[in-house]
Amino acid sequence: MDNLLDNIQEVLLMGPGPSCVPPSVSQAMAKPTIGHLDPYFIKIMDAIKDRLRTVLNTENELTIPMSGTGSSGMEACFVNLVEKGDPVLVIKNGVFGMRMEDVATRLGADVDTLEFEWGTPVRTEEVQAKLADKSYSIVAVVHAETSTGVLNPVPEIGKLLQGTDTIYLVDAVTSMGGMEIRMDAWGIDALYSGTQKCLSCPPGLAPLSFSPKAVAKLEARKTKVPNWYLDLSLIKSYWKGASRAYHHTAPINMHYALYQALQVILEEGLDEVYARHLENHRRLVQNLEDMGLEMLVDTKDRLPMLNSVKIPSGVDEAAVRSNLLTKHKIEIGAGLGPLAGKIWRIGLMGHTARPDNVDRLISALKAEM
Amino acid sequence: MDNLLDNIQEVLLMGPGPSCVPPSVSQAMAKPTIGHLDPYFIKIMDAIKDRLRTVLNTENELTIPMSGTGSSGMEACFVNLVEKGDPVLVIKNGVFGMRMEDVATRLGADVDTLEFEWGTPVRTEEVQAKLADKSYSIVAVVHAETSTGVLNPVPEIGKLLQGTDTIYLVDAVTSMGGMEIRMDAWGIDALYSGTQKCLSCPPGLAPLSFSPKAVAKLEARKTKVPNWYLDLSLIKSYWKGASRAYHHTAPINMHYALYQALQVILEEGLDEVYARHLENHRRLVQNLEDMGLEMLVDTKDRLPMLNSVKIPSGVDEAAVRSNLLTKHKIEIGAGLGPLAGKIWRIGLMGHTARPDNVDRLISALKAEM
Repeated sequence: MDNLLDNIQEVLLMGPGPSCVPPSVSQAMAKPTIGHLDPYFIKIMDAIKDRLRTVLNTENELTIPMSGTGSSGMEACFVNLVEKGDPVLVIKNGVFGMRMEDVATRLGADVDTLEFEWGTPVRTEEVQAKLADKSYSIVAVVHAETSTGVLNPVPEIGKLLQGTDTIYLVDAVTSMGGMEIRMDAWGIDALYSGTQKCLSCPPGLAPLSFSPKAVAKLEARKTKVPNWYLDLSLIKSYWKGASRAYHHTAPINMHYALYQALQVILEEGLDEVYARHLENHRRLVQNLEDMGLEMLVDTKDRLPMLNSVKIPSGVDEAAVRSNLLTKHKIEIGAGLGPLAGKIWRIGLMGHTARPDNVDRLISALKAEM
Repeated sequence: MDNLLDNIQEVLLMGPGPSCVPPSVSQAMAKPTIGHLDPYFIKIMDAIKDRLRTVLNTENELTIPMSGTGSSGMEACFVNLVEKGDPVLVIKNGVFGMRMEDVATRLGADVDTLEFEWGTPVRTEEVQAKLADKSYSIVAVVHAETSTGVLNPVPEIGKLLQGTDTIYLVDAVTSMGGMEIRMDAWGIDALYSGTQKCLSCPPGLAPLSFSPKAVAKLEARKTKVPNWYLDLSLIKSYWKGASRAYHHTAPINMHYALYQALQVILEEGLDEVYARHLENHRRLVQNLEDMGLEMLVDTKDRLPMLNSVKIPSGVDEAAVRSNLLTKHKIEIGAGLGPLAGKIWRIGLMGHTARPDNVDRLISALKAEM
């Protein structure tokens, strides 16, 4: 039988994720599978919890990877924290804010939205005005909007919610591992991420953290979580204590990869990793601007790890992306929703954020435009 | 920094899953991660669909792996097919039947159950009597009950449902890849499985298949699927057609592993694989009985891949399991629920089902009992 796996060619992943995976992380996945209740696997689980807490600057006991991709983390946060009719505010300025609205609405939440133009950040004063009108059970926002490349003011919104009963829910899919997150200091109660962005691990797990306040809300539910697979009130017994209660079989080898990805990041040092993201972002922007290209987002609101570039008129954007992939083995991302055909999204996530990668992309872009 | 991954020791996995992973499957996971919309990845996706269809003996277009472990497949089947108040019959004789009841109940189904003693199979005539009383939107049963080692009469129940509007939903987590499944011929409308049992792939994906009748039911829903992450009406657009719509980032490297696991099985031949499971099951049972041990399940109702052995009185069952793991590097499973402390569960799943593994376990058991 033919085997397609024999001909997978390495691609420089400069899209919105997945990002390039360091060789030691790829190799970690090939380690022998052991049982999900094996004491040695439990040691690895405990180490993953510790490392996630370090990256998120949190003391939260309930800090674990969910057994699905980043979007399962979003689903998990909402399904565990929402009960039918709960007033939820979703602040949105891109695809992932829209997705939050969809997820919360399907769960029967009473969803209000506060919308900002795609490519611009959330304005804190408008959030403040909205919160003056009504009190919410949950306020949700995306830290780093992958669809636009915009950084939202997560710490500032956190300040507005200080001392309230509101649960502050943050999407950190694209920010985690690429820029500082101070979960506890910023007053975040529930946070989810994905492995395939700045953690530079293949997709397949969703790191999630719940503050004691979020856990209390979960424990005070009047109804069971309407999703057995993602029910954290059950899952937390598998991740805590001396005797672990079987819930579902954890994706063992994906956990090896996450463990190793966190090892790579912590060995380099968080500050060094964040500085590297910023330096390569500046190198990329400088080079793009030298080519006469224009960024979508204002300088002060830009993400280092996701760079939205306006497509010059007359350029066949799909052909450029296709040529980059087939001729240069470089993947960049297309625009989504209202930005489809208008921008490219260039990722500098995790292991991808290196000067030689920036230079390789720039010379390929010059050849194809 | 210390690295726990450096000291993972290979374990002979003879529990209820995960099972032993062939080296080529482990190595497949270490292949370079590529994008989830890369045309080459789409080729791999298409091949996975074809191979799953071959193993399941189905023509169902919607035959895909869900991005979670086996239990996410159960969640996906119910959440896509149940609307609030739908009458659902769950036939149960073990943990996984109970789980189905829990999942369906959380989703607001009107759940009836038909229960059989753990360790005994479902009796078709009682199902027939139940169906004569009431018509159900969904009838659900577990093919191979992993918690007891019992085979349930899936084809016979299928016959009872022929020509009705009822959706026939089958859990094939433990059976798929270890015994014949004729999804179309048996009239199964919705089926899910897991990768870490007889497919001998690490845990992390849940193969799922929906018949045209199940797809029609999904499309006729009055309400949106209350789970964005597992919504098949969205996910199917990512798995079909020329242009693939992004839903969530697929767990790329897990798909490599599943592709390779299916390659290994199809290269050996399905009939040969099933015969190997049966032969090794007989070898195991013969050896256990020679030791004076007794099986939980009657001969005719036994699964080849999951063998429940009664624990003789006076034996510290947990100590035996612990010694097998630490001294012999062999994992076997404990009993669950009412069978905790009463049985061991010995898996002969996929790559694990080999004579030398059976012999190694038997000699280790003799040393430790």
